[in-house]
Amino acid sequence: MPDPVAILGGTGKEGRGLAARWSRSGRPVVIGSRDPDRARSVAAEVAELSGGVVSGASNSEACGAADVVVLATPFEGLDATVSPLVDQLQGKLVVSAVIPLAVVDGAFSTMPVAEGSAAELAAARLPGSRLAAAFHNVSSKLLLDLGHELDEDVPVAADDAADRELVLDLCRDLGTRGVAVGPLSLARYLEGYTAVLLTVNRLHRTQAGIRFTGLP
Amino acid sequence: MPDPVAILGGTGKEGRGLAARWSRSGRPVVIGSRDPDRARSVAAEVAELSGGVVSGASNSEACGAADVVVLATPFEGLDATVSPLVDQLQGKLVVSAVIPLAVVDGAFSTMPVAEGSAAELAAARLPGSRLAAAFHNVSSKLLLDLGHELDEDVPVAADDAADRELVLDLCRDLGTRGVAVGPLSLARYLEGYTAVLLTVNRLHRTQAGIRFTGLP
Repeated sequence: MPDPVAILGGTGKEGRGLAARWSRSGRPVVIGSRDPDRARSVAAEVAELSGGVVSGASNSEACGAADVVVLATPFEGLDATVSPLVDQLQGKLVVSAVIPLAVVDGAFSTMPVAEGSAAELAAARLPGSRLAAAFHNVSSKLLLDLGHELDEDVPVAADDAADRELVLDLCRDLGTRGVAVGPLSLARYLEGYTAVLLTVNRLHRTQAGIRFTGLP
Repeated sequence: MPDPVAILGGTGKEGRGLAARWSRSGRPVVIGSRDPDRARSVAAEVAELSGGVVSGASNSEACGAADVVVLATPFEGLDATVSPLVDQLQGKLVVSAVIPLAVVDGAFSTMPVAEGSAAELAAARLPGSRLAAAFHNVSSKLLLDLGHELDEDVPVAADDAADRELVLDLCRDLGTRGVAVGPLSLARYLEGYTAVLLTVNRLHRTQAGIRFTGLP
């Protein structure tokens, strides 16, 4: 059986979508939330949709259940979510899907983050963890539509090539092509492109993604 | 005959590539440079490659020759190039392809720009012009290989829909699909993604581009 994956803040739309796809692929998923009852309730819903193994837990318990932990909280809750988990996340691969999104006068943008990006903020709070950034832009609507074949790529940033490979495996289980783009310092550009894609979605009434050309 | 286009800082690799494609499509191109002799010499080279109409001029003269003016200078020369041309560029559509690229310890990133992006810096210096941002990421090598069919998209940001349409025409003449992404405030994300693509190029030994999925 593939290694389990935990999703902190996993009761939101993006977390549900990731959980549905991963559990359908045969990967056990633990959905973490501040509210464990809500996590269990969402886990039951997702398991019914995917037919896979999905459980719910507190964020802290969820960390203990997997060596790969995905952060899917809103940016506003990121610091408060990860800072108390520095010990639980020690030695683990933490994959940030968090976007410091701002909507000003109806226009999408990203907030300035002192550390450079949401992923680097998490890295600063979790000195004993390895950080990666991925899964920013896959539409939760398309993820939850399990019959939809995803044709977009998932850019993956991490400093260590072996960590990027672990995340590429998660992309494959999601039904997408992961593309290793380089070090974690690129996370700000991956996060920022979300503002572009959300605006494209609105302008063209679609669910846009991006695909890299020029790759084998 | 299609309207001419001027390219300021057009003697660099990106400028040559754009000039070659546009002139081949039948669009007259004026290459501008601080050094008009160099501009004329590069124009002659490009015309020989493309079989099109390409002339060379000072940056100031080039502005007078077209209603659409592309900025293809290095970021470092942007302010000094556009600030003296505020009158010549009055009422024109100015398309910034400029990238505030930085290379620190071998890693690609973008420099912070007080105005938000290179395009918005140009907008601030050119209060009488309409600004757009595009053409950041099309590989000059692939542009100059006139037999190569480009399969990537060119994201186009501008506040005005009609201006975006003018740039989409330029994309078509380049042999690419232009995609209107939204207002000029998105330029920072288009510029920033260059750091991602350059790193992907190095990591995967390719010339990568991006293509939007989910569009008709």
